[in-house]
Amino acid sequence: MKERLRTFFLGKRLEDSKLSDEKFNILWGIPVFASDAISSVSYAGEEILLVLIPVLGMASYKSFLPIVAAIIGLLGILVFCYRQTIDAYPQGGGAYIVATDNLGETPGLVAGAALIIGYILTVAVSACAGAAAVTSAFPELLKWKALIALILIALLTWGNLRGLRESAVMFGVPTYLFIFTMLTLIVVGIVRYASGSYTPQETAIAAESSKDMLLFVILRAFASGCTALTGVEAVSNGVPNFKEPAPKNAKKVLYAMAGFVCIVFFGVSVLISMYRIVPNEEATAVSQLAEAVFGSGSALYYVVQVMTVVILTLAANTAFAGLPLLMALMAQDGYLPRQLIYRGTRLNFSNGILFLFASAALLVIAFNGDQHLLLPLYAAGVFLSFLLSQLGMVLHWVRKKGPGWQTKAFVNGFGTIITGITLVIIVLMKFLQGAWVTLVCIILLVWLMRTIKKHYDKVRDDLRISSPEEAVALMGRGRVGKLVLPVQNVNRSFVKVLNCAKDLDFDEIEFYHICSDEASAKQLQAQVERLGVPGTFVYEVTHYRNTEEVLMRHIEAEHAKLDKHQHLTVMMPNLVMQNRWARVLHNQTTKTMIRRMEKYRNVYIFQIPYII
Amino acid sequence: MKERLRTFFLGKRLEDSKLSDEKFNILWGIPVFASDAISSVSYAGEEILLVLIPVLGMASYKSFLPIVAAIIGLLGILVFCYRQTIDAYPQGGGAYIVATDNLGETPGLVAGAALIIGYILTVAVSACAGAAAVTSAFPELLKWKALIALILIALLTWGNLRGLRESAVMFGVPTYLFIFTMLTLIVVGIVRYASGSYTPQETAIAAESSKDMLLFVILRAFASGCTALTGVEAVSNGVPNFKEPAPKNAKKVLYAMAGFVCIVFFGVSVLISMYRIVPNEEATAVSQLAEAVFGSGSALYYVVQVMTVVILTLAANTAFAGLPLLMALMAQDGYLPRQLIYRGTRLNFSNGILFLFASAALLVIAFNGDQHLLLPLYAAGVFLSFLLSQLGMVLHWVRKKGPGWQTKAFVNGFGTIITGITLVIIVLMKFLQGAWVTLVCIILLVWLMRTIKKHYDKVRDDLRISSPEEAVALMGRGRVGKLVLPVQNVNRSFVKVLNCAKDLDFDEIEFYHICSDEASAKQLQAQVERLGVPGTFVYEVTHYRNTEEVLMRHIEAEHAKLDKHQHLTVMMPNLVMQNRWARVLHNQTTKTMIRRMEKYRNVYIFQIPYII
Repeated sequence: MKERLRTFFLGKRLEDSKLSDEKFNILWGIPVFASDAISSVSYAGEEILLVLIPVLGMASYKSFLPIVAAIIGLLGILVFCYRQTIDAYPQGGGAYIVATDNLGETPGLVAGAALIIGYILTVAVSACAGAAAVTSAFPELLKWKALIALILIALLTWGNLRGLRESAVMFGVPTYLFIFTMLTLIVVGIVRYASGSYTPQETAIAAESSKDMLLFVILRAFASGCTALTGVEAVSNGVPNFKEPAPKNAKKVLYAMAGFVCIVFFGVSVLISMYRIVPNEEATAVSQLAEAVFGSGSALYYVVQVMTVVILTLAANTAFAGLPLLMALMAQDGYLPRQLIYRGTRLNFSNGILFLFASAALLVIAFNGDQHLLLPLYAAGVFLSFLLSQLGMVLHWVRKKGPGWQTKAFVNGFGTIITGITLVIIVLMKFLQGAWVTLVCIILLVWLMRTIKKHYDKVRDDLRISSPEEAVALMGRGRVGKLVLPVQNVNRSFVKVLNCAKDLDFDEIEFYHICSDEASAKQLQAQVERLGVPGTFVYEVTHYRNTEEVLMRHIEAEHAKLDKHQHLTVMMPNLVMQNRWARVLHNQTTKTMIRRMEKYRNVYIFQIPYII
Repeated sequence: MKERLRTFFLGKRLEDSKLSDEKFNILWGIPVFASDAISSVSYAGEEILLVLIPVLGMASYKSFLPIVAAIIGLLGILVFCYRQTIDAYPQGGGAYIVATDNLGETPGLVAGAALIIGYILTVAVSACAGAAAVTSAFPELLKWKALIALILIALLTWGNLRGLRESAVMFGVPTYLFIFTMLTLIVVGIVRYASGSYTPQETAIAAESSKDMLLFVILRAFASGCTALTGVEAVSNGVPNFKEPAPKNAKKVLYAMAGFVCIVFFGVSVLISMYRIVPNEEATAVSQLAEAVFGSGSALYYVVQVMTVVILTLAANTAFAGLPLLMALMAQDGYLPRQLIYRGTRLNFSNGILFLFASAALLVIAFNGDQHLLLPLYAAGVFLSFLLSQLGMVLHWVRKKGPGWQTKAFVNGFGTIITGITLVIIVLMKFLQGAWVTLVCIILLVWLMRTIKKHYDKVRDDLRISSPEEAVALMGRGRVGKLVLPVQNVNRSFVKVLNCAKDLDFDEIEFYHICSDEASAKQLQAQVERLGVPGTFVYEVTHYRNTEEVLMRHIEAEHAKLDKHQHLTVMMPNLVMQNRWARVLHNQTTKTMIRRMEKYRNVYIFQIPYII
């Protein structure tokens, strides 16, 4: 039944060999790895303006493009740095691997934690931004924004549980369509502006400007805009998924991705600046821009909105592919629960997918679907993983040397400094707005992961046998010992148990009876002895109606008498009702007792079913 | 910990011998057995008026007293009938016993079901009526009425779980105080009325009177008033609790109870009629009467209200004593879950008490604390049990004969006819208002109880061994058979299991391994063989990551090969984490597998704990 429901919702169980190994060429590699980075365009510019406008008013547009340019410059530096990671880690060089490899356990865990949080936020932010694109087009849906985001996440979860693959076509077509749509928007927008057919509304906005605050505001706007760079590291993680020569193809995809991000981000920003777009609660900057360029309600306007939702959904999907894989890797290293290692019926890491669903949904609910509140949490984690990855690369070159290692170390060193400065800016500017939450979560995660590792190590050490000789030596230890056979009356279930007990070679059998008067005990003893199985009959009288307690106390006392290598077996009938409803009519004493006896190291539990 | 909390809330565990056996004389017997019946006075008159007034208006008072007189007449007849029950059943003659004894299983169950429902309604109605007495005095509490009723029920539950006894003083003093208070009310009220110091307000009430409806209305009012007679049978249930000569004392208490009910009910009804009391949503009839007689806000008014709450609480408490005892009796006969038989730590039937709490609380919540909605459900069940009890007594005399049996049979026959007619009136008049619910519940309960009985009989027959010879014969059957030892790798927990297995004399050992490639299986086989325990090594290859499924299928296949008297034992290590939190880091596979294997009749499960 359960199995059939699962098959209906998720499809039938897949064989190991079905694990796909699709390799991407450059053309299809771009959309698969770039959707996350490119999708950032739909919210990054808006975030910058949301910082500038309340302070600088219409003067914001003077600072806007320079900030965008600075961010694109940062992108250029990152591309150069990740080029080198691709060369050094052709087997895939995510921040967790690079940091663990070169900096050690704790930095690796910090990078891993930062990545986990980053992936979760990718899903939450993308879903909320996607919902914002929907509500911009249909303002009457505004109050359902969080719900729309949740539905997007739920659909992605379902798709990924079924085993949605990062197939080239599914990703490629929409990503290229999105790029094409944005390019059309930019070209048409510039033409319309140049032809003078559009006069921007000069909305007078109260500005609380002051010279002293200018630098502060610009830094904060820069920090907000850095969300445009999330997803840039994706290519370096995925080198093994490229066709040969993999590193070469990966690098080309990296350049192309950077190029697209640069063109679309800069182009859209120029337009926003030209058209004096003021983002507000009801309509995103891109939505307002598309309205201004194509006209409100025009078909092309809706195309822009639809493509925005689609690209953001794809971006969220990269997290659904990335996080479960990362968590499986970390679980294999013992830092996360082992349940994350195993692939489910559809060959995906279903537990990781469900974890991502739960945590992203929780964020969306907690922040009521508002991406503006989520974004300050986002950049800090991402840049922390950038920093650790760059620092790791520096040490990699220094240790490994090799031809031209000084230049390479210098490039990554420069990257370390730049990402470090950016991280400091982000943390300082966004600390109270949410960066502190990210940092606290990272610290907690790292502590949790170390605790988990310690536990697994302890279990492994406890269970390990170092040599075949040790195993043989262990075999000699101890005898099976005494059997305790609780008996309340001589019925068929007791006889079934006794039948089993008499065949086995226990050192001694003890019949154990609890009663409220001696006479009935004597009578039972006679009945039991007539069955001809040698053993001692022990009974205890209680006037407190607490049979279970008395038996447990007896087992505890017997257990206390044993030394480390002596054992005791308790054999009990387990009355199983075939009719589930009938179970409420019975006490389930056997179940409770087994649960309570499990804590005794040397008490073995033997249950004999009696099915009725 | 759990034990300590229980001791704190309920007191320490009591020995069997503490089961009190207090015997009552007449003086204290009256309050213990009469509180339920006497408490009905506080709502019965009101119920009659609530039927009459909307139809007859101020003319209601003409019909009011005759109806009260008819009900008191009915009480007289019942007293005569129950006198005879006391004689015939000195060991206690509740409707369930009398009906089962004389009419057979189904009538007995119907009576039992009617009694169960009656007890639950006693608690719900008394608590709501008690809450009504509170809200009459403090109208600002009106919206919390259901909550007040729930609190009363919860306090009673707690008290009874602690093992509140039906002690003479606890019951006696408040009951006599209540009677005394009501007598004072009646005397003062009559004197004030006679002295002319009170002029009733002649509120004009719209009456939709019509001659045709008169009989119908009066019958319906009579049906409502019959709730005054609930609790009358209590004395005949409790004969063994009286001092010797028990039947004689019990009969005296029965007369005294009837006398008090008669005086208080009639007296209060006369006053209500004199003072032209019109009960409404906010104030009960008794509350209005006390206000009119003693003056609003006077100390004596509050005394009446307090005593009303107290007597109703005592009435509810009789159900807390009666229902669990009845259910234990019926559970002993196999008609109710066995858990109801056993006395808890405090020697009370704690499961029955909790059942009563849950069902009464549910009723109060469902009916939002409105006793007017609950009362129509009440009388039908009570009179059904009266009828069956009377009918049973008739057959008792006819069968047993004995001196003067004809007269006795005639008395109970007359009771049968009268209670039968009353029941028909109640059901007809109250059917749509709620009597149908009671009847449906009784039918369902009877069906449920028969089903339960059938189940227990089946279990008993399945387990029973009829003679010592049969037991000995059964002992010879079957051998313990093969041992299946699932193995994933040779670690300490496996060696512990193997150590146990080698000492026991299983017919054959099978090591069973599941893997995804043959090479590792061969390697493991070599390791296992080196341990020197003879057995076959069987492995299965799966590419679907479904170890649990494959093992279960293997067990199922092996089980299918066995004949009725052949067995199979599965021995498994059970990794127990001492740290509860650490358990989430493990799969609990052993637990799941044991749960799934329990359904196989001939599969024995042997678990060896490995504590970490």
